[in-house]
Amino acid sequence: MKVFSKFWHLLSSVFSPAIWKERWRKVARVKKKTVLIEDDEDGTVPEVDTKVSAPTVVRQYEEHPSEAYMDLKYRFRDIGRMGAIAETMGRDFLTAMPEGAWKARLGQIAFLHRRMHDDITNENVRRLIDKSKDHLENNKEDWDAWDIANLREMEKMYDRHEPVSNEMTEKRARLAYEGRRRHRDALADGDWPAAREFLSSMVDMNKQVAEARCKASGANSLYQSLMEEYMPGISVMDVEDWFGTLNKSLTKMLPKILDKQANEPEPHQIEDFYPAKAQMWLNHALLESIGFDFRRGGLFETGHNPVEGGTPDDTRLVIKNVDISNFMDSMKSALHEGGHGIYIQGLPRKTWRYQPVGQDMGAAVQESQALIIEMIIARTRSFYEFLSPRVEGLFHGIHNPKLSAGNLHAIKTRVKPSTLRKKADEVTYFFHMQHRFNLERDLIDGKLKPADLPDAWNYGMRDLLDVQPEGVRDGCLQDVHWFVGKFGYFPSYTVGHMMAAQLFDTIEDDLLGVDQSIAKGDFRKITDWLGENIHAKGRLLSFDELVKSATGKTLSPKPLLKHLEGRYLAA
Amino acid sequence: MKVFSKFWHLLSSVFSPAIWKERWRKVARVKKKTVLIEDDEDGTVPEVDTKVSAPTVVRQYEEHPSEAYMDLKYRFRDIGRMGAIAETMGRDFLTAMPEGAWKARLGQIAFLHRRMHDDITNENVRRLIDKSKDHLENNKEDWDAWDIANLREMEKMYDRHEPVSNEMTEKRARLAYEGRRRHRDALADGDWPAAREFLSSMVDMNKQVAEARCKASGANSLYQSLMEEYMPGISVMDVEDWFGTLNKSLTKMLPKILDKQANEPEPHQIEDFYPAKAQMWLNHALLESIGFDFRRGGLFETGHNPVEGGTPDDTRLVIKNVDISNFMDSMKSALHEGGHGIYIQGLPRKTWRYQPVGQDMGAAVQESQALIIEMIIARTRSFYEFLSPRVEGLFHGIHNPKLSAGNLHAIKTRVKPSTLRKKADEVTYFFHMQHRFNLERDLIDGKLKPADLPDAWNYGMRDLLDVQPEGVRDGCLQDVHWFVGKFGYFPSYTVGHMMAAQLFDTIEDDLLGVDQSIAKGDFRKITDWLGENIHAKGRLLSFDELVKSATGKTLSPKPLLKHLEGRYLAA
Repeated sequence: MKVFSKFWHLLSSVFSPAIWKERWRKVARVKKKTVLIEDDEDGTVPEVDTKVSAPTVVRQYEEHPSEAYMDLKYRFRDIGRMGAIAETMGRDFLTAMPEGAWKARLGQIAFLHRRMHDDITNENVRRLIDKSKDHLENNKEDWDAWDIANLREMEKMYDRHEPVSNEMTEKRARLAYEGRRRHRDALADGDWPAAREFLSSMVDMNKQVAEARCKASGANSLYQSLMEEYMPGISVMDVEDWFGTLNKSLTKMLPKILDKQANEPEPHQIEDFYPAKAQMWLNHALLESIGFDFRRGGLFETGHNPVEGGTPDDTRLVIKNVDISNFMDSMKSALHEGGHGIYIQGLPRKTWRYQPVGQDMGAAVQESQALIIEMIIARTRSFYEFLSPRVEGLFHGIHNPKLSAGNLHAIKTRVKPSTLRKKADEVTYFFHMQHRFNLERDLIDGKLKPADLPDAWNYGMRDLLDVQPEGVRDGCLQDVHWFVGKFGYFPSYTVGHMMAAQLFDTIEDDLLGVDQSIAKGDFRKITDWLGENIHAKGRLLSFDELVKSATGKTLSPKPLLKHLEGRYLAA
Repeated sequence: MKVFSKFWHLLSSVFSPAIWKERWRKVARVKKKTVLIEDDEDGTVPEVDTKVSAPTVVRQYEEHPSEAYMDLKYRFRDIGRMGAIAETMGRDFLTAMPEGAWKARLGQIAFLHRRMHDDITNENVRRLIDKSKDHLENNKEDWDAWDIANLREMEKMYDRHEPVSNEMTEKRARLAYEGRRRHRDALADGDWPAAREFLSSMVDMNKQVAEARCKASGANSLYQSLMEEYMPGISVMDVEDWFGTLNKSLTKMLPKILDKQANEPEPHQIEDFYPAKAQMWLNHALLESIGFDFRRGGLFETGHNPVEGGTPDDTRLVIKNVDISNFMDSMKSALHEGGHGIYIQGLPRKTWRYQPVGQDMGAAVQESQALIIEMIIARTRSFYEFLSPRVEGLFHGIHNPKLSAGNLHAIKTRVKPSTLRKKADEVTYFFHMQHRFNLERDLIDGKLKPADLPDAWNYGMRDLLDVQPEGVRDGCLQDVHWFVGKFGYFPSYTVGHMMAAQLFDTIEDDLLGVDQSIAKGDFRKITDWLGENIHAKGRLLSFDELVKSATGKTLSPKPLLKHLEGRYLAA
């Protein structure tokens, strides 16, 4: 009886007419207040939400007893909107803009970042944050977890921007896009002196930003203050810790894997002619099957490096022009960016569009979503059971041994130390990251001069993977990240890989027959799980809380090690 | 000797080392001051400018003794930049945006317009304009014609925005893009009650804007205050005057033309299969020959109505999806938008990018540039002498009588009253404009109710052209203009047509062998002339001054009447 009464209480509290009336009243009031300027910004065909029968409350505009917080919500809506505009201008830069517009475009994007900076650091914002915090302190019942998180994220944005000048922000944003072109040129001509000069200025500029932040916060790790942009809530010490464990285990594991694979037959190389259109059709179809919504996004081939990006309303993914001799390259890119894409599209746009709490969790979680698709799922044997008959048809190769499930899977799980991160297998991938992490930390903390980078690079590659780059192009210039000023980003790939393995472990426990689903090309159960447990959460939780709420444990390298051992060393 | 001395004086003043040193100093100072934030925003391959041997002075950043004016230049740079961003967001809206993003995009574009409005009407701007005017009054030698015009245009922008609220500006911008979709739907379903409701709200909103402006300026014509947005410097009385003359003459001319053509053989209709790709190739090639620079622009087929637009750095032209049965339709659109396009690209971007004086002169001059290409040049017999052999090859019809120069020209010069503006010939085109001018003036001035529009429309069409629309789709709903809130735009087509005829008259006098050039497809002499006399002037001159400086006379309907008489009634 007690149980029943509890259950009844729960039920009646949910279905209480008074509560619904109150919610509806709020919705109605919100609508009335905002219909003229705002309306609902959701332009898609109405989706039937099977879980909630009441209309979505647009939390962004929902009235709140704290006037200061309401004011902040409007300010941060406009800041977020400028961010969304900058994103679209950036996607256009990469996909459709006429070549001659590029410099003016840099100016426009940088200008938007300066404006956002000005609005975030506006003198009233600090005051409004303090007033809102007071209100929260004294009226806890008015604040739910989302509002509290939203306010927290507003303050974090303020604290990150306040110490830096708007000119520096503008310059940084400008150089980030200019760097993409510089990198393209550096890869083409391998001109180290020119690249060195640009990279030095990028290091200097980022050090200045880091110094300003450390001065304001009293922190002392320059590198940490940059890394926080990409992995909020994770410290350099955490990373060093995890990387230490991984290095130790993988250094032992790698020779065993190489030994084992030395006794297996070499896979057939798949090089052949795979028409670009057919490849893009396949990429499109695979993204649809993982749940990417093309009504709110797109997939483009360009001359640029792959980039995820955009907003939940408009998510345009960019991959490099396809290699017509190998469809697996563009497929890998598309699946990786697709993982980012469904994360972005799954953010709580209808409720929190443009608000800080409605944004993604940064690079570590972003990469976990990309890598769980690309590295965990799309390297299972089952995935190739699904793929093989389809590509036999698509690429006109029925019974072609290159396209057998076994062969495709063998190619994707072949381990071989090499100089290029992008061509790295799932096991040696870690060493590439550790290498870059060491170097960028030392560059920013002043222990490594940009001029010494090529030597330090080559030394590290020999040390960690026993390979020797031929030059700077397959050495220290291979990645775009430093060219666009992303110092502190690289560890997020490994942290993301760890998180992906830990999530997949949980998913296999939570859902029945994951492997069979993958073999049927039914990925939606998995991606819906990710949607519910990761995407829809926005920035509601801290990194630790998010990992714990989804997997029951804080992040650890163990699931990744277990995964690699299972995939690469099991009999 | 006197002549020689004068010549020498002129030469030495141009080549005086002191003057050059001063100019260079300015350039250097400007560079030094702005290199960090700004740099030169010109991203195209450096062009060899054969006329000036010194580098272009970036007037936007050139120091000026009036501090207030310098401040205004920086403010208006950012306002112009937001305008450029809104333009790109708008082009993307029409060409590449995923469908589901449309509502969020409306919010973003409208937001940018609100921000621009806020910046223009900022309380400091009025003060800075007054201080700058004082400076000009007392230091005339510091102000050249461009600076004076730039300040004048800043004040005009201020005066136009100041009386209107930022909320109204935001709403107006939002509805302008929403109207494109509404119009698309209205054309598809012909639903007059739904369209009426939307059009009524557009009329009301624009009346409110007009009332606010009239209240501030003391003017009393609501319609005039809207028309000024599209045709600054031209009054409703001017338009009524010109339209009176044109109506009188064309009413007499039309029956004579119809009689004459009744005795000529009907041209072969060209309906056939013209592949879309080939049509777009032709359109692209024709735009290249008139001087449109595809490194800084593009031409897109979309489901929307044709739109010119963009900025000198990034000019994307939009035409409707081509009709595969008639290549002349898409060609006409492309040439029309191409005329706009070369005007936009020819604006003084290197010197005055983003400044008010660097912008175009509004719709009347815009349409003059579109119509001189589409209606004047591309309806000459010579144009078809050039086109015919090329389309015989392109569309696989050598000796096909449909594609002969004579037949193509006959089709394009056939005069026939009809209900659709877009299908109208060059002679009856005027009556369509007069009709719309009468109606929109009465709608805004309150003499016509939106509910009475269909009847008034049909009455006018019978009265002016003796034709009867079948319904609202080929009647009062055929045009997008009112749906996007453009009341006061229509007369600019006729004013533009008048100006185009007057310009072409002058060009034929100024340049030798214009007709022979057209027959060879060599349009650059003509468009370079337009570039020098119209495009490169930006907003340096008033409308009257511009027409006079280019043609030696103020605008008159006579050259248009002479042109029509020559083309349609000469033996």
